[in-house]
Amino acid sequence: MTEPDLGRLSLNQATTQHWSMSATIDGCARAGIGWLGVWRDKLTELGAVATARRLKAAGVRASSLCRGGFFPAATQSDRLARLDDNRRAVDEAAEVGAPVLVLVSGPPVGRDIDLARKQVEDGICALLPYAESTGVRLAIEPLHPMFAGDRSVVVTLGQANAMAARIGSAFVGVAVDVYHVWWDPAIYQEIGRAGSSIVGFHVSDWLAPPPDHLLGRGVMGDGLIELRRLREAVDAAGYTGPIEVEIFNQKVWDMPGGEVLTLVQDRYRRLC
Amino acid sequence: MTEPDLGRLSLNQATTQHWSMSATIDGCARAGIGWLGVWRDKLTELGAVATARRLKAAGVRASSLCRGGFFPAATQSDRLARLDDNRRAVDEAAEVGAPVLVLVSGPPVGRDIDLARKQVEDGICALLPYAESTGVRLAIEPLHPMFAGDRSVVVTLGQANAMAARIGSAFVGVAVDVYHVWWDPAIYQEIGRAGSSIVGFHVSDWLAPPPDHLLGRGVMGDGLIELRRLREAVDAAGYTGPIEVEIFNQKVWDMPGGEVLTLVQDRYRRLC
Repeated sequence: MTEPDLGRLSLNQATTQHWSMSATIDGCARAGIGWLGVWRDKLTELGAVATARRLKAAGVRASSLCRGGFFPAATQSDRLARLDDNRRAVDEAAEVGAPVLVLVSGPPVGRDIDLARKQVEDGICALLPYAESTGVRLAIEPLHPMFAGDRSVVVTLGQANAMAARIGSAFVGVAVDVYHVWWDPAIYQEIGRAGSSIVGFHVSDWLAPPPDHLLGRGVMGDGLIELRRLREAVDAAGYTGPIEVEIFNQKVWDMPGGEVLTLVQDRYRRLC
Repeated sequence: MTEPDLGRLSLNQATTQHWSMSATIDGCARAGIGWLGVWRDKLTELGAVATARRLKAAGVRASSLCRGGFFPAATQSDRLARLDDNRRAVDEAAEVGAPVLVLVSGPPVGRDIDLARKQVEDGICALLPYAESTGVRLAIEPLHPMFAGDRSVVVTLGQANAMAARIGSAFVGVAVDVYHVWWDPAIYQEIGRAGSSIVGFHVSDWLAPPPDHLLGRGVMGDGLIELRRLREAVDAAGYTGPIEVEIFNQKVWDMPGGEVLTLVQDRYRRLC
Protein backbone atom coordinates (compact mmCIF):
# COMPACT_ATOMS: atom_id res chain seq x y z
CA MET A 1 0.00 0.00 0.00
CA THR A 2 1.87 3.03 -1.25
CA GLU A 3 0.64 6.60 -1.30
CA PRO A 4 -0.03 8.01 -4.73
CA ASP A 5 2.21 10.67 -6.24
CA LEU A 6 0.65 14.07 -5.45
CA GLY A 7 2.00 15.25 -8.79
CA ARG A 8 -0.56 13.01 -10.53
CA LEU A 9 -3.58 14.61 -8.86
CA SER A 10 -5.87 16.32 -11.36
CA LEU A 11 -8.94 18.35 -10.51
CA ASN A 12 -11.75 17.41 -12.83
CA GLN A 13 -13.64 20.62 -13.26
CA ALA A 14 -16.98 18.91 -12.55
CA THR A 15 -15.89 18.79 -8.89
CA THR A 16 -15.91 22.58 -8.56
CA GLN A 17 -18.87 23.17 -10.81
CA HIS A 18 -19.64 26.69 -9.56
CA TRP A 19 -16.16 28.03 -10.20
CA SER A 20 -15.50 29.87 -13.44
CA MET A 21 -12.60 28.66 -15.61
CA SER A 22 -10.43 31.51 -14.35
CA ALA A 23 -11.24 30.80 -10.72
CA THR A 24 -10.56 27.09 -11.28
CA ILE A 25 -7.14 27.68 -12.81
CA ASP A 26 -6.19 30.16 -10.08
CA GLY A 27 -7.48 27.74 -7.43
CA CYS A 28 -5.40 24.86 -8.78
CA ALA A 29 -2.30 27.07 -8.95
CA ARG A 30 -2.80 28.23 -5.35
CA ALA A 31 -3.32 24.66 -4.13
CA GLY A 32 -0.36 23.30 -6.08
CA ILE A 33 -2.53 21.06 -8.27
CA GLY A 34 -0.75 20.63 -11.56
CA TRP A 35 -3.51 19.11 -13.68
CA LEU A 36 -7.03 20.07 -14.69
CA GLY A 37 -9.70 17.89 -16.31
CA VAL A 38 -11.43 20.46 -18.51
CA TRP A 39 -15.11 20.55 -19.46
CA ARG A 40 -16.18 21.92 -22.82
CA ASP A 41 -18.92 24.17 -21.45
CA LYS A 42 -16.31 25.95 -19.32
CA LEU A 43 -14.22 26.76 -22.41
CA THR A 44 -16.72 29.33 -23.61
CA GLU A 45 -15.58 31.78 -20.90
CA LEU A 46 -12.16 32.51 -22.39
CA GLY A 47 -12.11 30.32 -25.51
CA ALA A 48 -9.90 27.26 -25.82
CA VAL A 49 -6.76 29.04 -27.00
CA ALA A 50 -6.83 31.72 -24.27
CA THR A 51 -7.63 29.01 -21.72
CA ALA A 52 -4.51 27.16 -22.83
CA ARG A 53 -2.42 30.31 -22.35
CA ARG A 54 -3.90 30.90 -18.93
CA LEU A 55 -3.26 27.29 -17.92
CA LYS A 56 0.36 27.50 -19.05
CA ALA A 57 0.94 30.75 -17.18
CA ALA A 58 -0.44 29.13 -14.03
CA GLY A 59 1.68 25.98 -14.41
CA VAL A 60 -1.39 23.78 -14.83
CA ARG A 61 -1.79 21.21 -17.62
CA ALA A 62 -5.02 19.88 -19.09
CA SER A 63 -5.28 16.16 -18.32
CA SER A 64 -8.32 15.56 -20.51
CA LEU A 65 -11.29 17.23 -22.14
CA CYS A 66 -14.78 16.15 -21.11
CA ARG A 67 -16.54 15.18 -23.22
CA GLY A 68 -17.29 13.87 -26.67
CA GLY A 69 -19.53 10.97 -27.58
CA PHE A 70 -23.32 10.68 -27.60
CA PHE A 71 -23.10 8.90 -30.93
CA PRO A 72 -26.46 7.07 -31.26
CA ALA A 73 -29.20 9.02 -33.00
CA ALA A 74 -32.37 8.18 -34.88
CA THR A 75 -31.35 9.50 -38.29
CA GLN A 76 -28.22 9.56 -40.40
CA SER A 77 -28.23 13.35 -40.47
CA ASP A 78 -28.45 13.47 -36.68
CA ARG A 79 -25.56 11.03 -36.43
CA LEU A 80 -23.50 13.19 -38.81
CA ALA A 81 -24.31 16.25 -36.70
CA ARG A 82 -23.05 14.41 -33.62
CA LEU A 83 -19.89 13.51 -35.51
CA ASP A 84 -19.33 17.17 -36.44
CA ASP A 85 -19.69 18.12 -32.80
CA ASN A 86 -17.18 15.43 -31.87
CA ARG A 87 -14.71 16.85 -34.39
CA ARG A 88 -15.13 20.25 -32.70
CA ALA A 89 -14.47 18.54 -29.37
CA VAL A 90 -11.24 17.07 -30.80
CA ASP A 91 -10.25 20.56 -31.97
CA GLU A 92 -10.93 22.00 -28.54
CA ALA A 93 -8.91 19.23 -26.87
CA ALA A 94 -5.97 20.01 -29.16
CA GLU A 95 -6.31 23.75 -28.59
CA VAL A 96 -6.46 23.51 -24.81
CA GLY A 97 -3.57 21.03 -24.80
CA ALA A 98 -5.56 18.03 -23.52
CA PRO A 99 -3.98 14.78 -24.75
CA VAL A 100 -7.24 12.86 -24.30
CA LEU A 101 -10.89 13.41 -25.25
CA VAL A 102 -13.22 11.45 -22.93
CA LEU A 103 -16.12 9.80 -24.77
CA VAL A 104 -19.47 9.22 -23.09
CA SER A 105 -21.12 6.94 -25.60
CA GLY A 106 -24.72 8.05 -25.37
CA PRO A 107 -28.01 6.28 -24.64
CA PRO A 108 -30.02 4.00 -26.93
CA VAL A 109 -32.58 5.40 -29.31
CA GLY A 110 -35.72 3.50 -28.32
CA ARG A 111 -35.43 -0.16 -27.37
CA ASP A 112 -32.53 -1.37 -29.54
CA ILE A 113 -29.46 -1.33 -27.31
CA ASP A 114 -27.42 -3.50 -29.71
CA LEU A 115 -27.98 -1.01 -32.53
CA ALA A 116 -26.93 1.85 -30.24
CA ARG A 117 -23.75 -0.03 -29.36
CA LYS A 118 -22.98 -0.49 -33.04
CA GLN A 119 -23.60 3.22 -33.66
CA VAL A 120 -21.15 4.08 -30.88
CA GLU A 121 -18.43 1.93 -32.43
CA ASP A 122 -19.18 3.26 -35.92
CA GLY A 123 -19.06 6.81 -34.54
CA ILE A 124 -15.67 6.28 -32.92
CA CYS A 125 -14.31 4.74 -36.14
CA ALA A 126 -15.60 7.73 -38.11
CA LEU A 127 -14.04 10.18 -35.65
CA LEU A 128 -10.73 8.37 -35.41
CA PRO A 129 -8.90 9.73 -38.50
CA TYR A 130 -9.57 13.28 -37.32
CA ALA A 131 -8.35 12.48 -33.79
CA GLU A 132 -5.19 10.88 -35.24
CA SER A 133 -4.52 13.89 -37.43
CA THR A 134 -4.67 16.21 -34.41
CA GLY A 135 -2.80 13.91 -32.03
CA VAL A 136 -5.70 13.61 -29.56
CA ARG A 137 -6.43 10.18 -28.06
CA LEU A 138 -10.01 9.07 -27.63
CA ALA A 139 -10.96 7.48 -24.30
CA ILE A 140 -13.96 5.15 -24.25
CA GLU A 141 -15.37 5.56 -20.76
CA PRO A 142 -17.73 2.83 -19.55
CA LEU A 143 -20.41 4.38 -17.37
CA HIS A 144 -22.22 2.69 -14.50
CA PRO A 145 -25.11 0.53 -15.80
CA MET A 146 -27.56 2.83 -14.05
CA PHE A 147 -26.79 5.28 -16.86
CA ALA A 148 -27.50 2.74 -19.63
CA GLY A 149 -30.84 4.35 -20.44
CA ASP A 150 -29.88 8.01 -20.40
CA ARG A 151 -26.13 8.41 -20.93
CA SER A 152 -24.11 5.42 -22.10
CA VAL A 153 -24.73 2.04 -23.66
CA VAL A 154 -21.09 1.22 -22.87
CA VAL A 155 -21.37 -0.02 -19.28
CA THR A 156 -18.44 -2.30 -18.49
CA LEU A 157 -14.70 -2.06 -18.90
CA GLY A 158 -14.83 -5.45 -20.61
CA GLN A 159 -17.12 -3.99 -23.25
CA ALA A 160 -14.90 -0.90 -23.66
CA ASN A 161 -11.80 -3.08 -23.90
CA ALA A 162 -13.41 -5.26 -26.55
CA MET A 163 -14.45 -2.21 -28.54
CA ALA A 164 -10.99 -0.64 -28.30
CA ALA A 165 -9.40 -3.94 -29.34
CA ARG A 166 -11.66 -4.25 -32.38
CA ILE A 167 -10.85 -0.69 -33.43
CA GLY A 168 -7.17 -1.37 -32.83
CA SER A 169 -5.66 2.11 -32.89
CA ALA A 170 -3.11 3.67 -30.54
CA PHE A 171 -5.44 6.67 -30.55
CA VAL A 172 -8.36 4.78 -28.97
CA GLY A 173 -8.07 3.76 -25.33
CA VAL A 174 -10.26 3.45 -22.25
CA ALA A 175 -10.91 5.62 -19.21
CA VAL A 176 -11.43 3.88 -15.86
CA ASP A 177 -13.66 5.74 -13.41
CA VAL A 178 -13.95 3.95 -10.10
CA TYR A 179 -17.53 5.18 -9.57
CA HIS A 180 -18.61 3.50 -12.79
CA VAL A 181 -16.76 0.19 -12.44
CA TRP A 182 -16.25 -0.63 -8.75
CA TRP A 183 -19.17 -3.13 -8.62
CA ASP A 184 -17.89 -5.26 -11.53
CA PRO A 185 -16.81 -8.80 -10.52
CA ALA A 186 -14.43 -8.78 -13.52
CA ILE A 187 -12.88 -5.36 -12.89
CA TYR A 188 -9.36 -6.40 -11.87
CA GLN A 189 -9.13 -8.85 -14.74
CA GLU A 190 -10.33 -6.18 -17.18
CA ILE A 191 -7.94 -3.54 -15.82
CA GLY A 192 -5.12 -5.98 -16.45
CA ARG A 193 -6.43 -6.69 -19.92
CA ALA A 194 -6.71 -2.96 -20.67
CA GLY A 195 -3.02 -2.47 -19.86
CA SER A 196 -1.42 0.33 -21.83
CA SER A 197 -4.72 1.29 -23.43
CA ILE A 198 -5.77 2.97 -20.15
CA VAL A 199 -5.59 6.68 -20.93
CA GLY A 200 -7.50 8.07 -17.97
CA PHE A 201 -8.26 7.23 -14.35
CA HIS A 202 -10.96 9.01 -12.32
CA VAL A 203 -11.71 8.77 -8.61
CA SER A 204 -14.60 9.60 -6.30
CA ASP A 205 -16.64 7.30 -4.05
CA TRP A 206 -19.90 5.33 -4.03
CA LEU A 207 -22.40 6.37 -1.37
CA ALA A 208 -24.96 3.74 -0.37
CA PRO A 209 -27.66 4.24 -1.35
CA PRO A 210 -26.75 6.86 -3.95
CA PRO A 211 -28.45 10.11 -2.86
CA ASP A 212 -29.09 11.18 -6.45
CA HIS A 213 -28.94 9.66 -9.94
CA LEU A 214 -26.54 12.26 -11.34
CA LEU A 215 -25.24 14.17 -8.33
CA GLY A 216 -24.75 11.28 -5.94
CA ARG A 217 -21.00 10.80 -5.96
CA GLY A 218 -19.05 10.93 -2.73
CA VAL A 219 -15.67 12.34 -1.81
CA MET A 220 -13.04 9.60 -1.61
CA GLY A 221 -13.35 7.85 1.74
CA ASP A 222 -17.04 8.63 2.26
CA GLY A 223 -18.23 5.47 0.48
CA LEU A 224 -17.54 1.84 -0.33
CA ILE A 225 -14.99 1.83 -3.13
CA GLU A 226 -11.64 0.11 -2.61
CA LEU A 227 -9.79 3.12 -3.99
CA ARG A 228 -6.20 2.18 -3.30
CA ARG A 229 -6.67 -1.37 -4.59
CA LEU A 230 -8.11 -0.03 -7.84
CA ARG A 231 -5.44 2.67 -8.20
CA GLU A 232 -2.67 0.15 -7.62
CA ALA A 233 -4.26 -2.19 -10.18
CA VAL A 234 -4.39 0.59 -12.75
CA ASP A 235 -0.77 1.48 -11.95
CA ALA A 236 0.24 -2.17 -12.24
CA ALA A 237 -1.42 -2.29 -15.65
CA GLY A 238 1.02 0.40 -16.74
CA TYR A 239 -0.89 3.65 -16.31
CA THR A 240 1.31 6.48 -15.06
CA GLY A 241 -0.81 9.50 -16.02
CA PRO A 242 -2.92 11.97 -14.10
CA ILE A 243 -5.58 10.81 -11.61
CA GLU A 244 -8.67 12.98 -11.96
CA VAL A 245 -10.91 13.66 -9.00
CA GLU A 246 -14.39 13.93 -10.48
CA ILE A 247 -17.22 14.41 -7.96
CA PHE A 248 -20.72 15.34 -9.06
CA ASN A 249 -22.35 16.20 -5.74
CA GLN A 250 -24.49 19.17 -4.81
CA LYS A 251 -23.06 19.36 -1.28
CA VAL A 252 -19.54 19.51 -2.65
CA TRP A 253 -20.66 22.16 -5.14
CA ASP A 254 -22.06 24.20 -2.27
CA MET A 255 -18.67 24.26 -0.48
CA PRO A 256 -16.13 27.05 -1.11
CA GLY A 257 -13.88 25.84 -3.92
CA GLY A 258 -10.67 26.25 -1.93
CA GLU A 259 -12.02 23.99 0.81
CA VAL A 260 -12.99 21.38 -1.78
CA LEU A 261 -9.42 21.34 -3.09
CA THR A 262 -7.94 20.94 0.40
CA LEU A 263 -10.36 18.11 1.19
CA VAL A 264 -9.68 16.39 -2.12
CA GLN A 265 -5.91 16.62 -1.69
CA ASP A 266 -6.10 15.14 1.81
CA ARG A 267 -8.35 12.25 0.81
CA TYR A 268 -6.35 11.58 -2.35
CA ARG A 269 -3.12 11.30 -0.38
CA ARG A 270 -4.54 9.08 2.33
CA LEU A 271 -6.94 6.86 0.37
CA CYS A 272 -6.09 6.73 -3.34
CA MET B 1 -42.53 -13.02 -31.94
CA THR B 2 -45.16 -15.00 -30.06
CA GLU B 3 -47.44 -13.79 -27.31
CA PRO B 4 -46.72 -15.25 -23.88
CA ASP B 5 -49.10 -17.72 -22.29
CA LEU B 6 -51.46 -15.75 -20.04
CA GLY B 7 -51.47 -18.75 -17.74
CA ARG B 8 -47.85 -17.98 -16.83
CA LEU B 9 -48.56 -14.45 -15.60
CA SER B 10 -47.83 -14.02 -11.89
CA LEU B 11 -48.48 -10.92 -9.84
CA ASN B 12 -45.54 -10.20 -7.65
CA GLN B 13 -47.07 -8.71 -4.57
CA ALA B 14 -44.63 -5.78 -4.58
CA THR B 15 -46.63 -4.43 -7.54
CA THR B 16 -49.76 -3.89 -5.43
CA GLN B 17 -47.97 -2.87 -2.27
CA HIS B 18 -50.97 -1.24 -0.61
CA TRP B 19 -53.22 -4.28 -0.93
CA SER B 20 -53.51 -6.62 2.03
CA MET B 21 -52.82 -10.31 1.43
CA SER B 22 -56.55 -11.06 1.37
CA ALA B 23 -57.25 -8.24 -1.09
CA THR B 24 -54.38 -9.43 -3.28
CA ILE B 25 -55.59 -13.02 -3.43
CA ASP B 26 -59.15 -11.89 -4.16
CA GLY B 27 -57.90 -9.45 -6.78
CA CYS B 28 -55.90 -12.14 -8.57
CA ALA B 29 -58.87 -14.51 -8.50
CA ARG B 30 -61.20 -11.83 -9.94
CA ALA B 31 -58.71 -10.96 -12.67
CA GLY B 32 -58.00 -14.58 -13.53
CA ILE B 33 -54.37 -14.38 -12.52
CA GLY B 34 -53.30 -17.84 -11.40
CA TRP B 35 -49.99 -17.08 -9.71
CA LEU B 36 -48.80 -14.83 -6.90
CA GLY B 37 -45.23 -13.90 -5.98
CA VAL B 38 -45.55 -13.66 -2.21
CA TRP B 39 -43.62 -11.34 0.12
CA ARG B 40 -42.74 -12.43 3.63
CA ASP B 41 -43.97 -9.26 5.34
CA LYS B 42 -47.43 -9.89 3.87
CA LEU B 43 -47.57 -13.35 5.45
CA THR B 44 -48.01 -11.90 8.92
CA GLU B 45 -51.61 -10.96 8.12
CA LEU B 46 -52.98 -14.51 8.01
CA GLY B 47 -49.91 -16.60 8.70
CA ALA B 48 -48.26 -18.77 6.06
CA VAL B 49 -50.49 -21.83 6.51
CA ALA B 50 -53.78 -19.92 6.39
CA THR B 51 -52.46 -17.94 3.43
CA ALA B 52 -51.82 -21.23 1.64
CA ARG B 53 -55.41 -22.34 2.30
CA ARG B 54 -56.77 -19.03 1.10
CA LEU B 55 -54.64 -19.21 -2.06
CA LYS B 56 -55.83 -22.73 -2.78
CA ALA B 57 -59.48 -21.82 -2.31
CA ALA B 58 -59.02 -18.92 -4.74
CA GLY B 59 -57.28 -21.07 -7.37
CA VAL B 60 -54.06 -19.09 -7.07
CA ARG B 61 -50.62 -20.67 -6.62
CA ALA B 62 -47.54 -19.12 -5.02
CA SER B 63 -44.86 -18.75 -7.68
CA SER B 64 -42.10 -17.73 -5.26
CA LEU B 65 -41.42 -16.24 -1.86
CA CYS B 66 -39.54 -12.94 -1.63
CA ARG B 67 -37.12 -12.93 -0.05
CA GLY B 68 -34.21 -14.54 1.72
CA GLY B 69 -30.58 -13.55 1.53
CA PHE B 70 -28.72 -10.60 3.09
CA PHE B 71 -25.94 -12.97 4.09
CA PRO B 72 -22.92 -10.68 4.67
CA ALA B 73 -22.53 -9.39 8.22
CA ALA B 74 -19.70 -8.10 10.35
CA THR B 75 -19.63 -10.88 12.95
CA GLN B 76 -20.06 -14.63 12.97
CA SER B 77 -23.05 -14.37 15.32
CA ASP B 78 -24.72 -11.88 13.01
CA ARG B 79 -24.13 -14.20 10.08
CA LEU B 80 -25.65 -17.09 12.03
CA ALA B 81 -28.66 -14.93 12.88
CA ARG B 82 -29.10 -14.19 9.17
CA LEU B 83 -28.89 -17.90 8.47
CA ASP B 84 -31.60 -18.62 11.05
CA ASP B 85 -33.81 -16.05 9.41
CA ASN B 86 -33.17 -17.68 6.04
CA ARG B 87 -34.23 -21.05 7.45
CA ARG B 88 -37.48 -19.43 8.62
CA ALA B 89 -37.89 -18.05 5.08
CA VAL B 90 -37.47 -21.58 3.69
CA ASP B 91 -40.12 -22.80 6.14
CA GLU B 92 -42.49 -20.04 5.07
CA ALA B 93 -41.92 -20.85 1.40
CA ALA B 94 -42.75 -24.50 2.06
CA GLU B 95 -45.81 -23.58 4.12
CA VAL B 96 -47.23 -21.18 1.58
CA GLY B 97 -46.50 -23.64 -1.24
CA ALA B 98 -43.87 -21.55 -3.02
CA PRO B 99 -41.43 -23.79 -4.90
CA VAL B 100 -38.75 -21.10 -4.91
CA LEU B 101 -37.21 -18.75 -2.34
CA VAL B 102 -35.71 -15.66 -4.01
CA LEU B 103 -32.36 -14.62 -2.52
CA VAL B 104 -31.23 -11.01 -2.49
CA SER B 105 -27.61 -11.43 -1.50
CA GLY B 106 -27.07 -8.37 0.64
CA PRO B 107 -24.60 -5.46 0.53
CA PRO B 108 -20.93 -5.46 1.53
CA VAL B 109 -19.89 -4.77 5.10
CA GLY B 110 -17.50 -1.86 4.70
CA ARG B 111 -15.17 -1.80 1.71
CA ASP B 112 -14.46 -5.49 1.09
CA ILE B 113 -16.79 -6.56 -1.72
CA ASP B 114 -14.87 -9.80 -2.37
CA LEU B 115 -15.35 -10.87 1.24
CA ALA B 116 -19.06 -10.09 1.02
CA ARG B 117 -19.33 -12.21 -2.12
CA LYS B 118 -17.63 -15.08 -0.32
CA GLN B 119 -20.03 -14.68 2.62
CA VAL B 120 -22.98 -14.86 0.23
CA GLU B 121 -21.75 -18.11 -1.27
CA ASP B 122 -20.93 -19.54 2.16
CA GLY B 123 -24.39 -18.52 3.37
CA ILE B 124 -26.13 -20.24 0.47
CA CYS B 125 -24.07 -23.40 1.04
CA ALA B 126 -24.99 -23.34 4.73
CA LEU B 127 -28.68 -22.89 3.91
CA LEU B 128 -28.76 -25.49 1.18
CA PRO B 129 -29.24 -28.71 3.22
CA TYR B 130 -32.28 -27.17 4.91
CA ALA B 131 -33.74 -26.07 1.57
CA GLU B 132 -33.16 -29.54 0.12
CA SER B 133 -34.86 -31.17 3.10
CA THR B 134 -37.96 -29.02 2.60
CA GLY B 135 -38.00 -29.22 -1.21
CA VAL B 136 -37.64 -25.46 -1.70
CA ARG B 137 -35.31 -24.26 -4.44
CA LEU B 138 -33.09 -21.25 -3.81
CA ALA B 139 -32.92 -18.60 -6.54
CA ILE B 140 -29.83 -16.39 -6.66
CA GLU B 141 -31.14 -13.13 -8.08
CA PRO B 142 -28.52 -10.75 -9.47
CA LEU B 143 -29.57 -7.17 -8.75
CA HIS B 144 -28.77 -4.13 -10.85
CA PRO B 145 -25.25 -2.83 -10.05
CA MET B 146 -26.80 0.37 -8.71
CA PHE B 147 -27.80 -1.76 -5.70
CA ALA B 148 -24.26 -3.09 -5.14
CA GLY B 149 -23.75 -0.82 -2.15
CA ASP B 150 -27.06 -1.27 -0.37
CA ARG B 151 -28.73 -4.51 -1.44
CA SER B 152 -26.72 -7.06 -3.40
CA VAL B 153 -23.10 -7.78 -4.16
CA VAL B 154 -24.33 -10.24 -6.80
CA VAL B 155 -24.84 -7.94 -9.76
CA THR B 156 -24.65 -9.93 -12.99
CA LEU B 157 -26.24 -13.11 -14.25
CA GLY B 158 -22.75 -14.33 -15.13
CA GLN B 159 -21.75 -14.02 -11.50
CA ALA B 160 -24.94 -15.77 -10.32
CA ASN B 161 -24.42 -18.54 -12.89
CA ALA B 162 -20.84 -19.06 -11.76
CA MET B 163 -21.93 -19.21 -8.12
CA ALA B 164 -24.74 -21.66 -8.87
CA ALA B 165 -22.34 -23.82 -10.91
CA ARG B 166 -19.77 -23.91 -8.09
CA ILE B 167 -22.46 -24.90 -5.58
CA GLY B 168 -23.73 -27.50 -8.03
CA SER B 169 -27.11 -28.45 -6.55
CA ALA B 170 -30.47 -28.91 -8.28
CA PHE B 171 -31.84 -26.81 -5.39
CA VAL B 172 -29.82 -23.70 -6.30
CA GLY B 173 -30.75 -21.80 -9.44
CA VAL B 174 -30.96 -18.22 -10.66
CA ALA B 175 -33.75 -15.69 -11.04
CA VAL B 176 -33.66 -13.38 -14.05
CA ASP B 177 -35.28 -9.97 -13.53
CA VAL B 178 -35.21 -7.85 -16.67
CA TYR B 179 -34.90 -4.62 -14.66
CA HIS B 180 -31.68 -5.86 -13.10
CA VAL B 181 -30.01 -7.37 -16.17
CA TRP B 182 -31.22 -5.59 -19.33
CA TRP B 183 -28.08 -3.40 -19.63
CA ASP B 184 -25.64 -6.35 -19.61
CA PRO B 185 -23.76 -6.88 -22.90
CA ALA B 186 -23.46 -10.57 -21.99
CA ILE B 187 -27.08 -11.14 -20.99
CA TYR B 188 -28.21 -13.39 -23.86
CA GLN B 189 -25.09 -15.50 -23.58
CA GLU B 190 -25.61 -15.83 -19.82
CA ILE B 191 -29.31 -16.69 -20.18
CA GLY B 192 -28.29 -19.49 -22.51
CA ARG B 193 -25.62 -20.61 -20.07
CA ALA B 194 -28.12 -20.57 -17.18
CA GLY B 195 -30.42 -22.94 -19.06
CA SER B 196 -32.43 -25.17 -16.77
CA SER B 197 -31.08 -23.47 -13.66
CA ILE B 198 -33.42 -20.53 -14.32
CA VAL B 199 -36.09 -20.85 -11.62
CA GLY B 200 -37.68 -17.42 -11.88
CA PHE B 201 -38.31 -14.68 -14.42
CA HIS B 202 -39.47 -11.17 -13.44
CA VAL B 203 -40.62 -8.35 -15.70
CA SER B 204 -41.09 -4.58 -15.42
CA ASP B 205 -39.40 -1.79 -17.39
CA TRP B 206 -36.49 0.64 -17.16
CA LEU B 207 -37.44 4.30 -17.16
CA ALA B 208 -34.73 6.71 -18.27
CA PRO B 209 -33.52 8.29 -16.12
CA PRO B 210 -34.83 6.21 -13.21
CA PRO B 211 -37.18 8.47 -11.20
CA ASP B 212 -36.12 6.86 -7.90
CA HIS B 213 -33.43 4.50 -6.63
CA LEU B 214 -35.88 1.95 -5.19
CA LEU B 215 -39.28 2.92 -6.57
CA GLY B 216 -38.25 3.78 -10.11
CA ARG B 217 -39.47 0.75 -12.07
CA GLY B 218 -41.84 1.21 -14.97
CA VAL B 219 -44.80 -0.78 -16.22
CA MET B 220 -43.84 -2.96 -19.19
CA GLY B 221 -43.82 -0.82 -22.30
CA ASP B 222 -43.10 2.47 -20.53
CA GLY B 223 -39.33 2.08 -20.78
CA LEU B 224 -36.38 0.77 -22.76
CA ILE B 225 -36.21 -2.96 -22.06
CA GLU B 226 -36.50 -5.43 -24.95
CA LEU B 227 -39.05 -7.48 -23.03
CA ARG B 228 -40.13 -9.98 -25.64
CA ARG B 229 -36.58 -10.66 -26.75
CA LEU B 230 -35.56 -11.41 -23.19
CA ARG B 231 -38.65 -13.52 -22.49
CA GLU B 232 -38.09 -15.55 -25.64
CA ALA B 233 -34.44 -16.04 -24.68
CA VAL B 234 -35.44 -17.29 -21.22
CA ASP B 235 -38.01 -19.58 -22.83
CA ALA B 236 -35.45 -20.86 -25.32
CA ALA B 237 -33.13 -21.61 -22.42
CA GLY B 238 -35.78 -23.98 -21.15
CA TYR B 239 -37.74 -21.97 -18.60
CA THR B 240 -41.46 -22.70 -18.68
CA GLY B 241 -42.51 -21.39 -15.26
CA PRO B 242 -44.43 -18.35 -14.06
CA ILE B 243 -43.50 -14.85 -15.22
CA GLU B 244 -43.73 -12.45 -12.29
CA VAL B 245 -44.65 -8.82 -12.82
CA GLU B 246 -42.71 -6.95 -10.13
CA ILE B 247 -43.02 -3.18 -10.23
CA PHE B 248 -41.80 -0.99 -7.38
CA ASN B 249 -43.27 2.37 -8.31
CA GLN B 250 -45.09 4.89 -6.15
CA LYS B 251 -47.41 5.91 -9.00
CA VAL B 252 -48.44 2.31 -9.57
CA TRP B 253 -48.95 1.88 -5.82
CA ASP B 254 -51.23 4.92 -5.85
CA MET B 255 -53.53 3.33 -8.50
CA PRO B 256 -56.51 1.16 -7.51
CA GLY B 257 -55.26 -2.43 -7.42
CA GLY B 258 -57.82 -3.70 -9.90
CA GLU B 259 -56.68 -1.14 -12.47
CA VAL B 260 -53.08 -2.17 -11.91
CA LEU B 261 -53.95 -5.79 -12.68
CA THR B 262 -55.83 -4.86 -15.86
CA LEU B 263 -52.92 -2.69 -17.02
CA VAL B 264 -50.39 -5.38 -16.20
CA GLN B 265 -52.36 -8.08 -18.04
CA ASP B 266 -52.66 -5.92 -21.14
CA ARG B 267 -48.99 -4.97 -21.23
CA TYR B 268 -47.91 -8.54 -20.47
CA ARG B 269 -49.92 -9.90 -23.38
CA ARG B 270 -48.77 -7.29 -25.87
CA LEU B 271 -45.16 -6.78 -24.86
CA CYS B 272 -43.75 -9.71 -22.91
